Amino acid sequence: MFGALLSRVREIRPHIHCITNYVTANDCANILLASGGSPIMADSPEESAEITALCDGLLLNTGTLNPDKLSAMRKSGKTANLLHHPVILDPVGAGASQFRTESIRILLQEIQFSAIRANLSEIKALFCDAKNSHGVDAMSSDNITEENLPDMIRLIKNIADRQNCVIAVTGQIDIIADQNQAFCIHNGCSMMKSVTGAGCQLSALTAAFITANPDQILESAAAAVCTMGVCGEIALEHLESYEGNASFRNKIIDSVYRLDSEILEQKANYQIF
Amino acid sequence: MFGALLSRVREIRPHIHCITNYVTANDCANILLASGGSPIMADSPEESAEITALCDGLLLNTGTLNPDKLSAMRKSGKTANLLHHPVILDPVGAGASQFRTESIRILLQEIQFSAIRANLSEIKALFCDAKNSHGVDAMSSDNITEENLPDMIRLIKNIADRQNCVIAVTGQIDIIADQNQAFCIHNGCSMMKSVTGAGCQLSALTAAFITANPDQILESAAAAVCTMGVCGEIALEHLESYEGNASFRNKIIDSVYRLDSEILEQKANYQIF
Amino acid sequence: MFGALLSRVREIRPHIHCITNYVTANDCANILLASGGSPIMADSPEESAEITALCDGLLLNTGTLNPDKLSAMRKSGKTANLLHHPVILDPVGAGASQFRTESIRILLQEIQFSAIRANLSEIKALFCDAKNSHGVDAMSSDNITEENLPDMIRLIKNIADRQNCVIAVTGQIDIIADQNQAFCIHNGCSMMKSVTGAGCQLSALTAAFITANPDQILESAAAAVCTMGVCGEIALEHLESYEGNASFRNKIIDSVYRLDSEILEQKANYQIF
Repeated sequence: MFGALLSRVREIRPHIHCITNYVTANDCANILLASGGSPIMADSPEESAEITALCDGLLLNTGTLNPDKLSAMRKSGKTANLLHHPVILDPVGAGASQFRTESIRILLQEIQFSAIRANLSEIKALFCDAKNSHGVDAMSSDNITEENLPDMIRLIKNIADRQNCVIAVTGQIDIIADQNQAFCIHNGCSMMKSVTGAGCQLSALTAAFITANPDQILESAAAAVCTMGVCGEIALEHLESYEGNASFRNKIIDSVYRLDSEILEQKANYQIF
Repeated sequence: MFGALLSRVREIRPHIHCITNYVTANDCANILLASGGSPIMADSPEESAEITALCDGLLLNTGTLNPDKLSAMRKSGKTANLLHHPVILDPVGAGASQFRTESIRILLQEIQFSAIRANLSEIKALFCDAKNSHGVDAMSSDNITEENLPDMIRLIKNIADRQNCVIAVTGQIDIIADQNQAFCIHNGCSMMKSVTGAGCQLSALTAAFITANPDQILESAAAAVCTMGVCGEIALEHLESYEGNASFRNKIIDSVYRLDSEILEQKANYQIF
Repeated sequence: MFGALLSRVREIRPHIHCITNYVTANDCANILLASGGSPIMADSPEESAEITALCDGLLLNTGTLNPDKLSAMRKSGKTANLLHHPVILDPVGAGASQFRTESIRILLQEIQFSAIRANLSEIKALFCDAKNSHGVDAMSSDNITEENLPDMIRLIKNIADRQNCVIAVTGQIDIIADQNQAFCIHNGCSMMKSVTGAGCQLSALTAAFITANPDQILESAAAAVCTMGVCGEIALEHLESYEGNASFRNKIIDSVYRLDSEILEQKANYQIF
């Protein structure tokens, strides 16, 4: 199934409008191109709604947020909703500041998202009244493990139900759920935490998959998460002993570029609950 | 001829003030350094004119444009004109929004450019009243092929005449023309479309070549386009079967760093009309 | 000694709030992760003080400065001082424009820095009333060589004394000094000048080392400079003959990721005055 969803990205070549942070924008653009999608970055309120209308899907990533970017996101989000384009949220840094959290809450109120891709600390800060004291990374206590998996699945399904959208939480194990069903994905490797914006890149991939497959939002989000994990594994296999996180970053994007559907199917390691 | 122009970039080491987008700024800076140039990125209206005056040439790239950046561009463009520094325009996303198109029209009215480097969709949106519905990439119908080459050469020469500057349009075949003469360049490879900001990087190279060779603007723009194409070909030769667009991006910049004048002359594949 | 300071970075994993430029933010984030630190980029005045309070150390880098970023820096700097977090300044482009120079002077007045990492042109522009006419790079006349080393050491110690902080000046030879003592470091290689933001990356490393070792600020700054130089040397050893500055950039970050304390100790090449 994931293979067919990837093939569809390559066939459709969805144009994704990204309103995103400047730290990882280049990597997000290159991973979108690697997947078969086409990125357009534009974050000025003067033009954001028009750019959204030109594209097929919208990604809102709240890294390096500021009031202008927020204003662009609100305009673009509403336009995308009107046009029935998928909208994906990556609430980077939710809980790290009042401005960040409140801005994201405004987005959640005004825009209907197709999917939210985040780490567990961000999800808890937004939906469980927890305090996120680690900025953009998940707190070590906020991990998804075999032990807490049943509780976590219940929690994520519950949030998905309340938000009426797919929630993709990534960590040691990834949970991608709507109110009824959850994919638990066991791909990836711990070195991915050493690449800045691996989460941002995954959110960009998620936008490409969902936009190319708008009738299978849950499966597409799961396929994107699985693709990122599988490509992390392939990248690690190709890493020389003297290479580190910069080469690893490039090799993950390279692996997305080279990934074919059969390999994705073969390497996908997930359960459905 | 192209070899001598490249040698001059390495000898002069021109300082290029870049007012550009945040998505590809790092790649533009590194490709400028690879060519022998020296980049300075600064986009605040508070200082842009002063920075321009410190440098030897100016590059205006309209990706991720906003009103502040536009204001900086206007001040810097006028300063560069007063000081007789070359000014190069990359009208990224022309036609994609009213704000983007109108901003670029203001730049075209207020600033005399030495060269404009763009794709065909952007050129048509600016100079042929066409609608660009593909954002930052050229529409597939907007390609330069053997079939339409004579028409395209006539069109580009005509625009160059009206704008009184060199126009460099890149696509499957690249046309670089002033009102009298056109270079048609057949270097490069299709994988370059998978690298975000390959066009931005080329525009940065173009600024370096023209600034180092201000008396040969047409030939310098053609040399820059040819350099990018040749380096794309060399990068492809060095690409392993498991490598993709991220490694390819690095290898293009690496190839510019290593390119010597003789290799450029040998591999250059162009006609003059 | 440097080895123990590096080990401490990996043990503590300091969170560094970076208010920095968009050209090199991605590289700064990845080199921080490579060192064992954890980057958080946030530059909006709406949230910068809160983000600073979440973190362990603060880096202010004045590349692509604008009034909003300056405002965020002032708020964050004051917060960091109140909380006794180390604050590191990289005065990119000091002397290149009135706005840049005056903004940095405001930062110097309002904030007590633990260390300032810069090139000699920037240091002279700020503390010796010299005019920096080269933008972000050091002027060729502003180099530290065996000939002028004693004078330079005296100058840097004097500035360190007046500013009551460590000054790290990088060039052919690097000088890191407080009012009493200077480390002169002979590591590194000239190709590092071909990597955009090598200085920015070093400043990020410096923030990580100092934040993890707040009682050894001088030694930590020296260890960071030495780490960058050693990793430049290791990267050069791994560079293929067809590779250039883009691959070199990645290999420097990779080498930081792989560097172990013994290798750092072995390769460190410095004198203390």
